[in-house]
Amino acid sequence: MENSPSNASEVNATLTDKGIDSNALTTKPYPSSKKIHVQGTQPGVRVAMREILQKPTHNMKGEAVEENPPLVVYDPSGPYTDPNATIDIRKGLAPLRMHWIWDRGDVEELPAVSSEYGRRRASDPSLDAIRFQHIRKPLRAKPGKNVSQMHYARKGIITPEMEYIAIRENQTLEAARANPKIAIQHPGNAWGAGIPAVITPEFVRDEVARGRAIIPCNINHPELEPMIIGRNFLVKINANIGNSAVASSIEEEVEKMIWATRWGSDTVMDLSTGKNIHETREWILRNAPVPIGTVPIYQALEKVNGKIEELSWEIYRDTLIEQAEQGVDYFTIHAGVLLRYVPLTEKRVAGIVSRGGSILAKWCLAHHQENFLYTHFEEICEIMKAYDVSFSLGDGLRPGAIADANDAAQFAELETLGELTKIAWEHDVQTMIEGPGHVPMHMVQVNMEKQLKECHEAPFYTLGPLTTDIAPGYDHITSGIGAAMIGWFGCAMLCYVTPKEHLGLPTKEDVKTGVITYKIAAHAADLAKGHPGAQARDNALSKARFEFRWEDQFNLSLDPETAKSFHDETLPAEGAKVAHFCSMCGPHFCSMRITEDVRDYAKKKALDEQAALEVGMIEKAEEFKKNGLEIYK
Amino acid sequence: MENSPSNASEVNATLTDKGIDSNALTTKPYPSSKKIHVQGTQPGVRVAMREILQKPTHNMKGEAVEENPPLVVYDPSGPYTDPNATIDIRKGLAPLRMHWIWDRGDVEELPAVSSEYGRRRASDPSLDAIRFQHIRKPLRAKPGKNVSQMHYARKGIITPEMEYIAIRENQTLEAARANPKIAIQHPGNAWGAGIPAVITPEFVRDEVARGRAIIPCNINHPELEPMIIGRNFLVKINANIGNSAVASSIEEEVEKMIWATRWGSDTVMDLSTGKNIHETREWILRNAPVPIGTVPIYQALEKVNGKIEELSWEIYRDTLIEQAEQGVDYFTIHAGVLLRYVPLTEKRVAGIVSRGGSILAKWCLAHHQENFLYTHFEEICEIMKAYDVSFSLGDGLRPGAIADANDAAQFAELETLGELTKIAWEHDVQTMIEGPGHVPMHMVQVNMEKQLKECHEAPFYTLGPLTTDIAPGYDHITSGIGAAMIGWFGCAMLCYVTPKEHLGLPTKEDVKTGVITYKIAAHAADLAKGHPGAQARDNALSKARFEFRWEDQFNLSLDPETAKSFHDETLPAEGAKVAHFCSMCGPHFCSMRITEDVRDYAKKKALDEQAALEVGMIEKAEEFKKNGLEIYK
Repeated sequence: MENSPSNASEVNATLTDKGIDSNALTTKPYPSSKKIHVQGTQPGVRVAMREILQKPTHNMKGEAVEENPPLVVYDPSGPYTDPNATIDIRKGLAPLRMHWIWDRGDVEELPAVSSEYGRRRASDPSLDAIRFQHIRKPLRAKPGKNVSQMHYARKGIITPEMEYIAIRENQTLEAARANPKIAIQHPGNAWGAGIPAVITPEFVRDEVARGRAIIPCNINHPELEPMIIGRNFLVKINANIGNSAVASSIEEEVEKMIWATRWGSDTVMDLSTGKNIHETREWILRNAPVPIGTVPIYQALEKVNGKIEELSWEIYRDTLIEQAEQGVDYFTIHAGVLLRYVPLTEKRVAGIVSRGGSILAKWCLAHHQENFLYTHFEEICEIMKAYDVSFSLGDGLRPGAIADANDAAQFAELETLGELTKIAWEHDVQTMIEGPGHVPMHMVQVNMEKQLKECHEAPFYTLGPLTTDIAPGYDHITSGIGAAMIGWFGCAMLCYVTPKEHLGLPTKEDVKTGVITYKIAAHAADLAKGHPGAQARDNALSKARFEFRWEDQFNLSLDPETAKSFHDETLPAEGAKVAHFCSMCGPHFCSMRITEDVRDYAKKKALDEQAALEVGMIEKAEEFKKNGLEIYK
Repeated sequence: MENSPSNASEVNATLTDKGIDSNALTTKPYPSSKKIHVQGTQPGVRVAMREILQKPTHNMKGEAVEENPPLVVYDPSGPYTDPNATIDIRKGLAPLRMHWIWDRGDVEELPAVSSEYGRRRASDPSLDAIRFQHIRKPLRAKPGKNVSQMHYARKGIITPEMEYIAIRENQTLEAARANPKIAIQHPGNAWGAGIPAVITPEFVRDEVARGRAIIPCNINHPELEPMIIGRNFLVKINANIGNSAVASSIEEEVEKMIWATRWGSDTVMDLSTGKNIHETREWILRNAPVPIGTVPIYQALEKVNGKIEELSWEIYRDTLIEQAEQGVDYFTIHAGVLLRYVPLTEKRVAGIVSRGGSILAKWCLAHHQENFLYTHFEEICEIMKAYDVSFSLGDGLRPGAIADANDAAQFAELETLGELTKIAWEHDVQTMIEGPGHVPMHMVQVNMEKQLKECHEAPFYTLGPLTTDIAPGYDHITSGIGAAMIGWFGCAMLCYVTPKEHLGLPTKEDVKTGVITYKIAAHAADLAKGHPGAQARDNALSKARFEFRWEDQFNLSLDPETAKSFHDETLPAEGAKVAHFCSMCGPHFCSMRITEDVRDYAKKKALDEQAALEVGMIEKAEEFKKNGLEIYK
């Protein structure tokens, strides 16, 4: 610990108010929920989870007849939903991984940022007003060292991050398993994935070592709560945020990140293309409990004022270092857009729809040279492993229309991404692969199969896919269908699509809709794969629904506020939430109430049958039996 | 035509204003669209379709360089979207099938309604104020006649309804095929369905004769535009409307029906359980261009004041006749809920969630008798064939929770529905089968396979299925995923689920959201099945999108209003809708614009190459070629 960071004290220093209004942030806890922490064996491993408390079951006379234990669920929302946490975005989150990073003894603190651009921004006094005040000095691997989780995994080391993840993925499954009403689960069909009954730290290590999962966790982003992306783990989702031509404030972007994780986003990509993206990114990272991804080519292009021809390896390299030293956890890098693939898109209905892809295609043609991300790929690997930034190898040639799905350009690029995966792995650099796009349902599975094969089981990370082009305004749904399916088939992370896709910039409400839709897709995929324990929440919620525990039904749902407000729209009275019927059918017609009656009736019949037996009315009892009522005895 | 109906003149009679505000109805045409009518060969066959007009393609200099022909799409909205139609819901729609029905010579007009309940309502002066004023006398098959479309089909008769459907299903496909940019389509995977390249009237007849498709069209609902439900046709969707404990006015219910069809609903079920449902149904039927379904047990139960034990075959029978004489096109009948199956639901997480199913289960237990719908099934068939009402054999034991999916109760009932299908077919009664419910993704396909097998390929009609229980407030999405998948696997009609499912009564906005979500699911299924011509709309929309024809993109979408308003939220200026970029990325970053540049650049390169060749710079040209630029020559 002699190299302990100088900034530990800085984090607690007195702050100048920068006009940031923390009240504008969504920091309240989830209803009827507690933040719990499960202790691991390694120092500092305290895994945050959400525990949802439930009410007892009441019979129709209103008597409590059964306790319902709390349900523990996976929770990417960080300290923002913990009423015991003090939130001050001017200070940033506590750097929970800092000791783990230093304790490995393979990093050094740099005297200053090493990117030319980062230095220029740091020394520009006009940016003081918007600059995050407690910037730590960057860490970097000591010369000759590799600080990637894959590197540790391959050396047989179980890092605290790996243990954290093992505990997190299990979601106190053993407790749920003790309750047979909640533990019941259909066997799944995981299409050859190898999901164990219990996730152990050693399993996490092994999956990372094999490249089948990644733990995006830059050493300069110690604030994040470790998470894993891989086919044998819970399916994850990503939300994109970022400002654009239409300016949005730094505060708004931080709130969008918090908001996205509140509803369940496992990672967030900052796709800003406007001004001050360096400073905005710093604010986001210092306050992000989840991994942050970026597409560095966007910022590189800003640096040459949008003139694609002027992009160069040097400018791009400086951008990678700039962002790596801020703590970005994964970079989308479109290194598979090769010069010879560009003409394959010429006959497409929608050409090249990936921004990064089109930038690089244009650069290749303008210079009549091979993509500089491809030709400098090994140098990029050197940067990635010095900070543990993961690759998200971009699908610059993904189809942007149903007509273009699974075409030669798309699959040619995928094969190149497979080659690059191997190179990245030679450097022990963690790697995932991005995927489409617009794909009709019957062509989804071949994408997954081909990706597994060509990319050697590196995790797949897809945008949707959208299963039809005809519903702008509803592309969270057109893509949610494809996302659920490809998640089932083995996709490890699903990049959300909001209702504004193709039309405009998402509002906060759109971000929420996109995230919830993708949580549905990811969870539906976990159920279909038969992920251990995945069905517990469904079981608990359905049990609450059937027992007319309205509040529990809301609280167990992905969006308690909306569920409650929809209910109250029709039946606003408080009493209606304890009523043994609901607004759709009223008391006479309620099928759930009738089922209760059926059960009560059957029980009474069984008692009658017993009475009949006792007075020797054997014949009547036999008749009962013949008609299948034995089960009630 | 000697038996021509007396009511033809009534329809044009002067009306008393009943306080109905026709302005509250949504009767405007779709933007940039025309109602067209395609003429058939049989008298009166004029098939309504929607033609969406498009603007020319402009290059980046703003010059028109290509015409984009109109796209014709399937249109269930009836005359309400035809600016040339005069709408007066007090008169009802024109009875377009009336001559076809009479011309077959097998029906007779009854002197009055034959149900006891119908007579009582007709003679109750207190109902005058809410009664539809132009009630026709009911038609019924002449003694010994069977007026079902299946009966005609099996006799080899191609009815005008069948010809109408053939034209309608093709959507002037030949015209679309003439345009290679629009006609391009991926081969689908239809899981053994036999979809022909062109739908002929003879094919329609054959499918109906085999029981593989149904044409719900009661002879007392001559206003409907014939449509077909079957695995080898376009996937259809249904929307449920109906009042409940919370009263809604007749006008509101008619508007909900119009509203649902406007957004694409192919049939509408009236699930009213409140008062005056007889009169409300009359208004709906007289104004409905789509088939109307009901669940007669709901009304039967009203007649016994909600006392399930007091239900009887006599009351139910009278209800069937009452509704058949009003013109209901299909009845959900839960004849498969057998006494011996009821105990199979006892250990379920969510018991019996079907309202009809729970009513009948309770009746069976109360009387300790077999379900009277099962024991009187042949008598029901006699009623169905006298009016051509189709069976929708209800799945009263469908699973209401993920945990209960595909269980013994569900599949036992399905097998019974298969037996009943055979009996219905012996009577030439058209039959479809209702399906689940809550089913995780990996258990969806077996539902379809089992239904096809047990029910001899009778059309399947499912509610969702919902693929997880954890998202009340978003069950249009949890179920839209399952609906798209089962539609792909062969389900013929998808019953929508709104965001209010499990929580409250849907508003108009919820109805729209449910319908659009299900149009997406149905269309995604058509694409995946490779339904001929299905991809034309996707292609046209993507082409418009790529060419920055914003207005065309909106108009070709399922919901032009929402698409336009989402766009305008970010970039409201009129000029933005002709701009060659959009709000998400701005002009520098727009990938579509960059792709245009890439194409232009490549063209210029090709010209340079040509020039190089001409001045003998062979070497440079060869280099160009080597790098894959030949395609641009």
